Amino acid sequence: MSGWLVIAGLGPGAQAQVTPEVQAALAEATDVVGYIPYVARVAERPGLTLHASDNRVELDRAAHALEMAADGRRVVVVSSGDPGVFAMASAVFEALEAGPAAWRTLDIRVLPGITAMLAAAARIGAPLGHDFCAINLSDNLKPWNLIEKRLRLAAEADFAMAFYNPRSKARPEGFGKALALLQDVCGDARPMIFARAVTTPEETMRVVPLPEAQPDMADMRTVVLLGNSTTRIIEGATGPMVYTPRSVQA
Amino acid sequence: MSGWLVIAGLGPGAQAQVTPEVQAALAEATDVVGYIPYVARVAERPGLTLHASDNRVELDRAAHALEMAADGRRVVVVSSGDPGVFAMASAVFEALEAGPAAWRTLDIRVLPGITAMLAAAARIGAPLGHDFCAINLSDNLKPWNLIEKRLRLAAEADFAMAFYNPRSKARPEGFGKALALLQDVCGDARPMIFARAVTTPEETMRVVPLPEAQPDMADMRTVVLLGNSTTRIIEGATGPMVYTPRSVQA
Repeated sequence: MSGWLVIAGLGPGAQAQVTPEVQAALAEATDVVGYIPYVARVAERPGLTLHASDNRVELDRAAHALEMAADGRRVVVVSSGDPGVFAMASAVFEALEAGPAAWRTLDIRVLPGITAMLAAAARIGAPLGHDFCAINLSDNLKPWNLIEKRLRLAAEADFAMAFYNPRSKARPEGFGKALALLQDVCGDARPMIFARAVTTPEETMRVVPLPEAQPDMADMRTVVLLGNSTTRIIEGATGPMVYTPRSVQA
Repeated sequence: MSGWLVIAGLGPGAQAQVTPEVQAALAEATDVVGYIPYVARVAERPGLTLHASDNRVELDRAAHALEMAADGRRVVVVSSGDPGVFAMASAVFEALEAGPAAWRTLDIRVLPGITAMLAAAARIGAPLGHDFCAINLSDNLKPWNLIEKRLRLAAEADFAMAFYNPRSKARPEGFGKALALLQDVCGDARPMIFARAVTTPEETMRVVPLPEAQPDMADMRTVVLLGNSTTRIIEGATGPMVYTPRSVQA
């Protein structure tokens, strides 16, 4: 048996947003590896072994997946959203680079998924319809002052912004600092969108003017979007629609 | 019959990356509206009218779609990639805001798709695995000096970058200026990725050090990715793998 490793994105939650190629890889796999809640989204079946592991062990999980693929197994590493956006793909390549040379001959494919910011944007309109950036607000793997520098420069560039991992129990303070900085440097009432558990039965969407945004509006299941200086709100029959125009005047 | 409007992303090209919810919307539609090559990706069937239009008529196309939905038709506006990323979703909301108040009561949904930068990133590794930005290099709808400002600030923020619409016959000069600016401000040999026609039979992927990047490596079917200052290349058996590490040292 010839082994392979697929690093697949499951999308934000709904089965209707899992691509056919990811479904096909899961159907052919002998082993699925990932963080507990993501592995829980994969249906059990005979011949498939599920390997669920806790958060913050990404490199161990990646090495385990590579070892199994080298042993001839058909391994899918699952991430929520897209595996290349603050998820497992970089961890697998880090482990690959640090590991035995033989791993570099493995059949490795990355299969994209619908990332949380784009699923959230779709649910509220088109807030990322102009130039934008994506910033991970966790300071587990980078210094906080780099996050602040990026927020300032992103505001100066007038990017719309998407924030992943805004707040966790282990990091209760960061998001409040980020909000205070953005409220100060943006200096306007552009809309901020708190999209929690997007596309799942627990989904909530909340749009607030930036000055009214509060840290406790976000948790680790929330992706936060922020418009740019031109972002507009249309009041529809069933709630607000938020979009960023394609044009900027000269 | 109760009409609706769906703004759907077809992904970058391969049918295996079209989500089930987009497939379902197309199966229920009476009308599909979009740019000629994207409408050509939708299979004809009895009861479905295809409305293909040329480029640069996005607002007319959007208004036409809204009118048909208001008339009780089930309309899908199709974009390549994700409709919220430099595509039709913003145009539809612009037309909605400028149109009759009755349009605001329409049933409108945006269905995300795999956007080109994430499909391209997946094909080469994980170059967008850390904070990143997405910039449309067309100056049809914004002044060129704003593009240059954003490139400078994005480099200062050490974002990985994705560039949409890098070059067209109508805009042959811009991408060369953007490359020269990036070569100057980045000042290193970080990898640039030219991903053309990703996931289609015509796909080509090319990785070059930034100083060796040339304007004619891109056309309008190309999405261009640029690593940040820490992006790494692993030489694999079948070609290079490019990834941006998750961590930055304090």
